[in-house]
Amino acid sequence: MSISKPTIILVKPQMGENIGAAARAMLNFGLTDLRLVSPRDGWPSESAEAMSAGALDKMPPVQVFDSVAEAIADCHHVYATTARPRDMVKPAMPAREAANDMHARAAKEQKTAILFGGERAGLENDDVAHAHTIITLPTNPDFSSLNLGQAVMLCVYEWFQVTPPALSQNEDPLATQKDFEDLMNRLEEELDKGGFFPAPDMKPTTVRNVRNLFTRIEMTDQEVRTFHGMVSALIGKKKR
Amino acid sequence: MSISKPTIILVKPQMGENIGAAARAMLNFGLTDLRLVSPRDGWPSESAEAMSAGALDKMPPVQVFDSVAEAIADCHHVYATTARPRDMVKPAMPAREAANDMHARAAKEQKTAILFGGERAGLENDDVAHAHTIITLPTNPDFSSLNLGQAVMLCVYEWFQVTPPALSQNEDPLATQKDFEDLMNRLEEELDKGGFFPAPDMKPTTVRNVRNLFTRIEMTDQEVRTFHGMVSALIGKKKR
Repeated sequence: MSISKPTIILVKPQMGENIGAAARAMLNFGLTDLRLVSPRDGWPSESAEAMSAGALDKMPPVQVFDSVAEAIADCHHVYATTARPRDMVKPAMPAREAANDMHARAAKEQKTAILFGGERAGLENDDVAHAHTIITLPTNPDFSSLNLGQAVMLCVYEWFQVTPPALSQNEDPLATQKDFEDLMNRLEEELDKGGFFPAPDMKPTTVRNVRNLFTRIEMTDQEVRTFHGMVSALIGKKKR
Repeated sequence: MSISKPTIILVKPQMGENIGAAARAMLNFGLTDLRLVSPRDGWPSESAEAMSAGALDKMPPVQVFDSVAEAIADCHHVYATTARPRDMVKPAMPAREAANDMHARAAKEQKTAILFGGERAGLENDDVAHAHTIITLPTNPDFSSLNLGQAVMLCVYEWFQVTPPALSQNEDPLATQKDFEDLMNRLEEELDKGGFFPAPDMKPTTVRNVRNLFTRIEMTDQEVRTFHGMVSALIGKKKR
């Protein structure tokens, strides 16, 4: 699995046919790391096999996860494709610009992933909250419904069109999403103990807002360690 | 039907599903003029309707023709998509460059069309001979099979991404393909009468080579008239 190529993650996909079409489009444009989060009809899928036109047989096995957090654990920078605007403060860019961004990050040895939502309603806000960057796919406003396979194809096509930039000097390495997730979970737990969430029904929204806030920072490894130190200090666990 | 937008022409498409997918992709990116040449299963098609996700109902009626020549009669510049190299001397460009070329031609009031071949074998050489420019769709060389709907989508997506250039000053108008076709047919007839095709089994290849030669010129209206005059003169019909 090459760090230089983006991982494609389908979140709660419904139709095997669309998973197969996504796999076919990926291999058409040289991508092979496909992951699924909670596919409705399970995995493997005969209809996906048939629709992939042989692509699934030529790719490494598809990995299946129970949550977005697990699926992106080894990634550094996460993109989310979304058709409708979200009430979140995140940078958004069209697929062509995002493709250039992916190559630039690969040159810095950052592993990237792109999240695609299910056929019915796209990504949930809690899924988008994991992403650092929104990818938009501009279409005819009077007939904008792209299907899942088409949306994947446009993103991977754009990725394939870019001439990769030269490897750059190593900067401070970004934290993996696993390390970031552990930090967020710990923060949430400690905030809960501290009475930060007085109204239980508001807790999910508040958690999401907190996550969105810190996702925007794109912490380095060192910054995640520093942040853990700050939390320890604040709750009085720091060694003196 | 706007002259500023390319016409999509599917030549001998087999599966209604792929015609429907092409229509959906077209409307996603703002194109509405779809033409078919000899669709295998006839027209209209229930499977095309279903796969178009409503696009076919929102577009003007699809036009069906018996030949490529008839389908492109009102067009000025014709592109052909082809996966394998052809033994023909024609300019070739990737879809992105072709999209810019289409907009530049639209600004000169030239009507453009893109030919797509059937699922099995793509365009025949005689179909490609009608085209002025080849469009290539670069893919992973180890897994390059794009289906018909995907190929259409990539071309129309690229078209949609271009900011149209300003209308330019009128140059000499190009001949329509109808007028060019009439000229070619007349030329072939007169060449035949003159014994230009001694071996009957070689005639189709020779006709194609002649057509490819003159397609490269992209004649203006005036040049077609001049050419007719030359033929008349050569066969001795010119008024003295």
